[in-house]
Amino acid sequence: MAEKLSDEQIKSALAELNALAGDSGEWILNDDKISKTFKFKSFIRAFGWMSQMAIWAEKLVHHPEWFNVYNKVEVTLTTHDAGGLTELDFKLAEKMEKFR
Amino acid sequence: MAEKLSDEQIKSALAELNALAGDSGEWILNDDKISKTFKFKSFIRAFGWMSQMAIWAEKLVHHPEWFNVYNKVEVTLTTHDAGGLTELDFKLAEKMEKFR
Repeated sequence: MAEKLSDEQIKSALAELNALAGDSGEWILNDDKISKTFKFKSFIRAFGWMSQMAIWAEKLVHHPEWFNVYNKVEVTLTTHDAGGLTELDFKLAEKMEKFR
Repeated sequence: MAEKLSDEQIKSALAELNALAGDSGEWILNDDKISKTFKFKSFIRAFGWMSQMAIWAEKLVHHPEWFNVYNKVEVTLTTHDAGGLTELDFKLAEKMEKFR
């Protein structure tokens, strides 16, 4: 099972992640979760991206909480089993950035 | 553009919809929106259903607000352009029931 990251590890992983995010919007740390709102040009693009991420989620055996309306996807990541953030959250978040 | 339904039309359409829903969970009317939480056997089934509904949404030019975590999908439907519920909401909801 993935282990809960320390505050220091989270700070470092979040900085790397937000470097990937660039000006597309920041990942926010809140209450042992990270979240970001992704915006796309259309529903087709938003859902197309979600479909890619759904396959990655199954592959990583780690699933997001996400809310979609039209071209917008609000994502929240945490590892319930570990009671906080683990490397799985940052792996999935990295995929989300690479495929957006 | 789809026209806002009357209270009577909504009542009747909701009854038909909930007849389709059977014991899978009820659609709830709240503040000019209808919503339902769908539960599936797995994430693959939940997201597979969402993928079918995404294509219907594009075809109907009418999109849901939906939140997914693992095998659960919380759906909310309304027609923002009309300021309330229209037949488009009930068409999409009917598809959601037929494909679940």
